[in-house]
Amino acid sequence: MGKRIGHRTVKFTNAPAIISFASAAGENEKKGPYGGYFDLTFDDGLWGEKTYELAERKMLTRVSQEALKKAGLTPADVSYMLAGDLLNQIISSGFAARALEIPFIGLYGACSTMAESVMLGAMLADGGYALNVLCATSSHFATAERQYRNPLELGTPRTPTAQNTVTGAGALVISAQKAGFPAVTFATAGRVIDLGINDVSDLGAAMAPAAAETIITHLEDTDRGADYYDYIITGDLGTFGSEMLLRMISGTGRDISANHRDCGVLIYGGDKKMGCGGSGCGCSAAMMCGYFLNEMKNGRINRMLFTATGALHSPTSMLQNETIPAIAHAVAIENGSVV
Amino acid sequence: MGKRIGHRTVKFTNAPAIISFASAAGENEKKGPYGGYFDLTFDDGLWGEKTYELAERKMLTRVSQEALKKAGLTPADVSYMLAGDLLNQIISSGFAARALEIPFIGLYGACSTMAESVMLGAMLADGGYALNVLCATSSHFATAERQYRNPLELGTPRTPTAQNTVTGAGALVISAQKAGFPAVTFATAGRVIDLGINDVSDLGAAMAPAAAETIITHLEDTDRGADYYDYIITGDLGTFGSEMLLRMISGTGRDISANHRDCGVLIYGGDKKMGCGGSGCGCSAAMMCGYFLNEMKNGRINRMLFTATGALHSPTSMLQNETIPAIAHAVAIENGSVV
Repeated sequence: MGKRIGHRTVKFTNAPAIISFASAAGENEKKGPYGGYFDLTFDDGLWGEKTYELAERKMLTRVSQEALKKAGLTPADVSYMLAGDLLNQIISSGFAARALEIPFIGLYGACSTMAESVMLGAMLADGGYALNVLCATSSHFATAERQYRNPLELGTPRTPTAQNTVTGAGALVISAQKAGFPAVTFATAGRVIDLGINDVSDLGAAMAPAAAETIITHLEDTDRGADYYDYIITGDLGTFGSEMLLRMISGTGRDISANHRDCGVLIYGGDKKMGCGGSGCGCSAAMMCGYFLNEMKNGRINRMLFTATGALHSPTSMLQNETIPAIAHAVAIENGSVV
Repeated sequence: MGKRIGHRTVKFTNAPAIISFASAAGENEKKGPYGGYFDLTFDDGLWGEKTYELAERKMLTRVSQEALKKAGLTPADVSYMLAGDLLNQIISSGFAARALEIPFIGLYGACSTMAESVMLGAMLADGGYALNVLCATSSHFATAERQYRNPLELGTPRTPTAQNTVTGAGALVISAQKAGFPAVTFATAGRVIDLGINDVSDLGAAMAPAAAETIITHLEDTDRGADYYDYIITGDLGTFGSEMLLRMISGTGRDISANHRDCGVLIYGGDKKMGCGGSGCGCSAAMMCGYFLNEMKNGRINRMLFTATGALHSPTSMLQNETIPAIAHAVAIENGSVV
């Protein structure tokens, strides 16, 4: 059962466990400082497929299969697949679910999807609605860029605030409580926040206020200080967005600068060719299911707050002169903790 | 807490209640035989807005507000808004959630969204993760047709199997158990089924196999006969899809022909100008939150199985020669029942 605390946070009384995880990444991500942590990597955008969309679908299907394999499960053991991606009508997820034959709950939270799926997955496992839940998401540079911004063939130069959509995917399995695994202990759902940014090449700025609002709400609701967590992780704010986040939070009298890490900043190790860092659902998913959960498994990290942010615009909404609404969901993941 | 029964069904031990509901519909839906049941109607596609997208967003926001008002709730009383729609990046839902300021969980299940949101909403309320959950979805003829098929300006004639996207929306509020309201008693999640249909003007045929599979699984898992329910409702199979569904189910030795009703067939009362009937997320949502829940409230219906189906293709997947994957989720809603 869940217990609601504070304004917007749920405490999981059965501490559902993350029993396995797997990640995939493309060429540029493999070359970055975390390249060695990804389970599956490939050296071109197509991975032997005819289209980039097929390559993205393959990534999502393969990381899901890999996460199941590591847990010693077959698709028949999984009650639900909670997945989404950036493509219109989340086709990567729908087609992956068709291949896996697991009951499918489609999500759309843009780049917040990994946190959204873990939050819901923890509720479903904790409450007895699911035995095992598969949470998965992906993004692909080539499929996302042409859908959201410009076709790659145009060779449009990057603006100074732009980020690079990560080619990557992550999947993890949540089960009812099981000792010896990292547990999902709290979840804080986000509201849609929009401070008026209207530049699709500045998504970090659009999303930072949502991240700040959710992180502050989480810390207030749980009565925890920022230093409670080894890491407070954001998904893909990038360099500028991360700076905005730290400033906004310091404006409330808190300081997360020592333990804040942004997956977008980390993934390319500051490579200037990648603009302000990585973005896309696959950015936080690959870093979470590649690096961070691995560090938890090895006991080098014991408590983290995973906050993935999403920009909820569409090419149509931008053409119609809308600003960019954003959202952030946060989940606390802790070792050795039965709350 | 939930109890898993059979292969894919959850039994809600706390019987979460649907405490209010509201619907909206456009001109053609208002002229149909159920026109009098919709709370909000309007006589053109724009409803005083500049674009069809703004009109759809207004519909979804207004039905949500209306459902809250009927329940005597403010947005601050609602733990989560579970919503999705057909537009790329579910912008109707994201913008509605921005206006409502309720923590937002974005879903994509195409036309299965209303059932997907009720299934998840019931889990969240039943398990103590939410006090009140708002479940909502919408579709709009003009926004969907131009995104999925042809711009209206082309005046493309309808093919014989085509349906008409409903301009409509529905919203309902699920709370922890409360006597005197219809309760969500069981949910059966769908798998992605694809028998190879590749005609986007024949979505009923693409979705019927998914509906059949979910309904049969539900009846098997709950050990209920088809006649247990006053109505077994599907969302938008249309005339041909409904015929296919009945045949597929009769092939398994069951007969749901007496109590099957399809919202798509009902909504336009067989008006030939509307092709094989209504389609779109708003079709089942408006009929559910307009007609069916009203009949339950009045005790004229006491047990229904609400099965909304979705086609999970995209214009991109169709251009890449994919077939149409489909899904169906089912929720049992019952009066006077504490399971």
